[in-house]
Amino acid sequence: MGFTRSRFLGGKPSKAPLLLPFLLTVLLVGSQGDGGAMDNGATERIAEESHRQDSAYLLIFIMLLTLTILTIWLFKHRRFRFLHETGLAMIYGLLVGVILRFGIHAPQSMSDVILSCAVNGSPATLLVNVSGRFYEYTLKGEVGQGKGHQVQDDEMLRKVTFDPEVFFNILLPPIIFHAGYSLKRRHFFRNIGSILAYAFIGTVISCFVIGLIMYGFVSFMKVVGQLGGDFYFTDCLFFGAIVSATDPVTVLAIFNELKVDVDLYALLFGESVLNDAVAIVLSSSIVAYQPAGDNSHSFEAMAMLKSFGVFLGVFSGSFALGVVTGVVTFTKLRDFPLLETALFFLMSWSTFLLAEACGFTGVVAVLFCGITQAHYTYNNLSPDSQDRTKQLFELLNFLAENFIFSYMGLTLFSFQSHVFNPLFIVGAFVAVFLGRAANIYPLSFLLNLGRKNKIGYNFQHVMMFAGLRGAMTFALSIRDTATYARQMMFSTTLLIVFFTVWICGGGTTPMLSFMSIPVGVDSDQDNARRSTKHESAWPFRIWYNFDHNYLKPLLTHSGPPLTATLPACCGPLARCLTSPQAYEEPKFANFCFNNVYRGGQETGTTVSAYGLVLGILSKLID
Amino acid sequence: MGFTRSRFLGGKPSKAPLLLPFLLTVLLVGSQGDGGAMDNGATERIAEESHRQDSAYLLIFIMLLTLTILTIWLFKHRRFRFLHETGLAMIYGLLVGVILRFGIHAPQSMSDVILSCAVNGSPATLLVNVSGRFYEYTLKGEVGQGKGHQVQDDEMLRKVTFDPEVFFNILLPPIIFHAGYSLKRRHFFRNIGSILAYAFIGTVISCFVIGLIMYGFVSFMKVVGQLGGDFYFTDCLFFGAIVSATDPVTVLAIFNELKVDVDLYALLFGESVLNDAVAIVLSSSIVAYQPAGDNSHSFEAMAMLKSFGVFLGVFSGSFALGVVTGVVTFTKLRDFPLLETALFFLMSWSTFLLAEACGFTGVVAVLFCGITQAHYTYNNLSPDSQDRTKQLFELLNFLAENFIFSYMGLTLFSFQSHVFNPLFIVGAFVAVFLGRAANIYPLSFLLNLGRKNKIGYNFQHVMMFAGLRGAMTFALSIRDTATYARQMMFSTTLLIVFFTVWICGGGTTPMLSFMSIPVGVDSDQDNARRSTKHESAWPFRIWYNFDHNYLKPLLTHSGPPLTATLPACCGPLARCLTSPQAYEEPKFANFCFNNVYRGGQETGTTVSAYGLVLGILSKLID
Repeated sequence: MGFTRSRFLGGKPSKAPLLLPFLLTVLLVGSQGDGGAMDNGATERIAEESHRQDSAYLLIFIMLLTLTILTIWLFKHRRFRFLHETGLAMIYGLLVGVILRFGIHAPQSMSDVILSCAVNGSPATLLVNVSGRFYEYTLKGEVGQGKGHQVQDDEMLRKVTFDPEVFFNILLPPIIFHAGYSLKRRHFFRNIGSILAYAFIGTVISCFVIGLIMYGFVSFMKVVGQLGGDFYFTDCLFFGAIVSATDPVTVLAIFNELKVDVDLYALLFGESVLNDAVAIVLSSSIVAYQPAGDNSHSFEAMAMLKSFGVFLGVFSGSFALGVVTGVVTFTKLRDFPLLETALFFLMSWSTFLLAEACGFTGVVAVLFCGITQAHYTYNNLSPDSQDRTKQLFELLNFLAENFIFSYMGLTLFSFQSHVFNPLFIVGAFVAVFLGRAANIYPLSFLLNLGRKNKIGYNFQHVMMFAGLRGAMTFALSIRDTATYARQMMFSTTLLIVFFTVWICGGGTTPMLSFMSIPVGVDSDQDNARRSTKHESAWPFRIWYNFDHNYLKPLLTHSGPPLTATLPACCGPLARCLTSPQAYEEPKFANFCFNNVYRGGQETGTTVSAYGLVLGILSKLID
Repeated sequence: MGFTRSRFLGGKPSKAPLLLPFLLTVLLVGSQGDGGAMDNGATERIAEESHRQDSAYLLIFIMLLTLTILTIWLFKHRRFRFLHETGLAMIYGLLVGVILRFGIHAPQSMSDVILSCAVNGSPATLLVNVSGRFYEYTLKGEVGQGKGHQVQDDEMLRKVTFDPEVFFNILLPPIIFHAGYSLKRRHFFRNIGSILAYAFIGTVISCFVIGLIMYGFVSFMKVVGQLGGDFYFTDCLFFGAIVSATDPVTVLAIFNELKVDVDLYALLFGESVLNDAVAIVLSSSIVAYQPAGDNSHSFEAMAMLKSFGVFLGVFSGSFALGVVTGVVTFTKLRDFPLLETALFFLMSWSTFLLAEACGFTGVVAVLFCGITQAHYTYNNLSPDSQDRTKQLFELLNFLAENFIFSYMGLTLFSFQSHVFNPLFIVGAFVAVFLGRAANIYPLSFLLNLGRKNKIGYNFQHVMMFAGLRGAMTFALSIRDTATYARQMMFSTTLLIVFFTVWICGGGTTPMLSFMSIPVGVDSDQDNARRSTKHESAWPFRIWYNFDHNYLKPLLTHSGPPLTATLPACCGPLARCLTSPQAYEEPKFANFCFNNVYRGGQETGTTVSAYGLVLGILSKLID
């Protein structure tokens, strides 16, 4: 095998893929190098041309982001709040998509002539014998029947519409990790019961409500003759799952800026973050049972079981990984902030990849990894690294987010096989609205029966309104666009995302004032006032005590020394396991914690065997 | 065209691609999901399996990096200096390569059966008709004759050996930018004459010396019958160009740690950074004239001209881009450090991409962009962003560097078509040694005729010894491995890199003490002592004055106000163009600068029309 030149050799003279004003230079220079016929020595030149094109395409995205940033700055500078940066990124993406789609016609070139030859099978790799020389081809996918002649027209657009794997392996992890890492844990855990209810039960309700409504619409469309292909009940459920994932980005940025009531913030944030995880697990469970067609009965029980198992496995796995990172950063690595930051970054990413490689859900893993890291590892980092990691993930999150949203705008025009079906779209909007309502209102009613501080109607209306669909919905729907059903779902999803981000996102500020939601709340003050009330449910109080008295001292340098919290008989062990720093630094946060949860301190539980081993190991390394 | 599923559908059951201890879990889970035959509904499962594999491969690299970081920390902690982190990364890469190569045998699977069909041409896209369904294939490259049967065995190894584009578009830019951004400009510019001589004349000398010696060896090999394919004179020159690029990473990390004499540091650093740029331009010029075979006469003059033109174009282009960035950050963006950092990052990267898209050399552009950004833009950034950008590029540089080096180790075993020819390898080592000597010693002799502070013999020996080959040599050689000549070059280059990084890199510390080079020099003190001497050549002094009196005040918030430096007649214009901050902040650096270059202050040149327009624009925005 004499090659590794896996560069794409689609050497088409790049007649102006770039019409942005910045890129006029590219245009002038880029159109000079004609690929020409593919003779023996010309591959190098074609490869160079292809490299130049790749750079130009990447440049388009960078320019889009730059433009977005400049406009965001202008908006922030002028305190203009009706259009959030993500909505803006989408608009720019749309514009560039229009230009690429309609502004440019790539001329046909010799090197792209397409030959058809009939073989019986579609292997992943194909060898083609061209007058004695062998060329290797790899499978790209199936092409719609009778559309073969269109392939070369769409080369450029296809290059811009890139691999969905990039979303899942590169762009999503930093966003989700950042969500976990910057989570205000106190508020989150205070409302954990309600958040879990909205995220788990609510998403499942929403998924099934949307699925059923869509099944009704699709059946109707079949009767009317508006349906151009197969659309099973599982497809409807799949659609329900992907559009049930609400997006934490847009609304929460506004909430953060306006300092909205912390409980509402925590509820919405917690719901939309966990939501994503639930939607992924749900949709992949549905896909796993897809081949059975519309046989929906055997699916339900199994999928639920599987989802539950996966979720538990992922949770414990990522928790364990987070703990391992905590132990690693226990060491004197803190003398080298660069190494520490790099390690922190790699460990977080590897959590994601490990989970994906194991067949778990990376998003769930990386979310809980973020929370764990913020809770334990963060305390072990040097102050320099604490800043660095925060800033790094803030930046990565910002870039990835804006990239995804501008890409969304772009795909509306660059994607090749949109199926816009008016009936389906209307149905989807109705279903999404009803699904959200079926999630929020009944659950809030039930939750209010048990909650001391009730979720008011104004809160419920805002939660209903603020259920934007964003990055995760998009990523899930672009992942597979092979069949008619999936294409229709993708196109509809795109419209739902646009609508919710622009209309609901833009209307959040007026909505808040209309619903008279308190803004400008100082979260710390608010917190100090409320945290004395023992509002958490009792299982969480027990966990807090255990965590504060045993886990934190064992895994971090902060917290009370184990010698104070363990019973006297474990004295020598406790001394051996406690970090020397723990005796020195009575931190304010721990002090607060102590005040709140002193009640459980008498419970003299011993540390788990697992924790012990880890702790001893880390002390030995130290 | 009914798809965008461009994921690679090579669904092979992943029988244990991972033998690292960490990954046992992956191994157990990953081997369960068998791809099975490619029936209609199974593509989803195959795609999922492929996604799982991709994650696992990425995970291998992340784990390699993690392992490297931990060992680096151990080394730093124990003050062990004989093996640098890059050498270490290579060793780990080697080990994993061995495991992947010999430890794992992927079983054959139905979905990889390879079919040959004869067509007359090798188009970039191929449509295959399989019982009425069309599948699209893309060209991957040419396969060596008679090696067709090996293709499926190497699937896994090929997946690990990924696209060279990634090196050029993703991994190299941060390394080179960081080199420019963290450049100690004062020391660099003081020795600019010598650095340019070594980098330009020296690299060309080295390239031709190595090329000629290799041509001798190759001719000898042809006579002896040791040569298995074509090897033209241009191939020899190409080899000379790529192995002439010395690597700034390894040696300079050691120099930095030991605080070696600043002049030696500046010489070596400047040479090896500019070196890379020259080697790229040289090698691409040679490739451009490659088809003419061994007709070397027409090549020389043209290539030189072209290289010179490209270099000038790139320099002015990247300078202009850097200035534009400076103007942009002029605005009140400094109130939003996140936006500022993101913009800074994107502008730097887009410089690279823009240059590549224009057919220039991105590395050169991004290097000078880094220098310009550090000189102008850095002064306009908010203090928060100054820290952020420094730390960000430090981290990116660190990760990219270690990734490249561990990847180098990996390719020694994972690359499929190595050609190790003992005679060629011996010849290459001799040629590289002689080429380096022909660069350093004669040039140093000539330079010493003009220099006030001579380059001593001990300096020359260290420069000779410290000419490591690293990332750039590797990236250039892996870029095209289609022909026999290129494969032999790639394998040999790999060995040269290993040898120089381990032996020369490891021997730097002993070498320094053996040559009695002063270490532990405080660069600032040393600088203050020398900067009063007017050591720079006169064209640079004029430039300094112009820069300090006009460009800096025009483009940044620092420097003396233009009202003081421009002649009185330009008064109103000067007031309009000077930033209000310039009047307020008499900075220490400017004060020093003023002392040194006061001589030129009388020269009352007016600012260029270009600068005026930019400046006015920026004031209007401000």
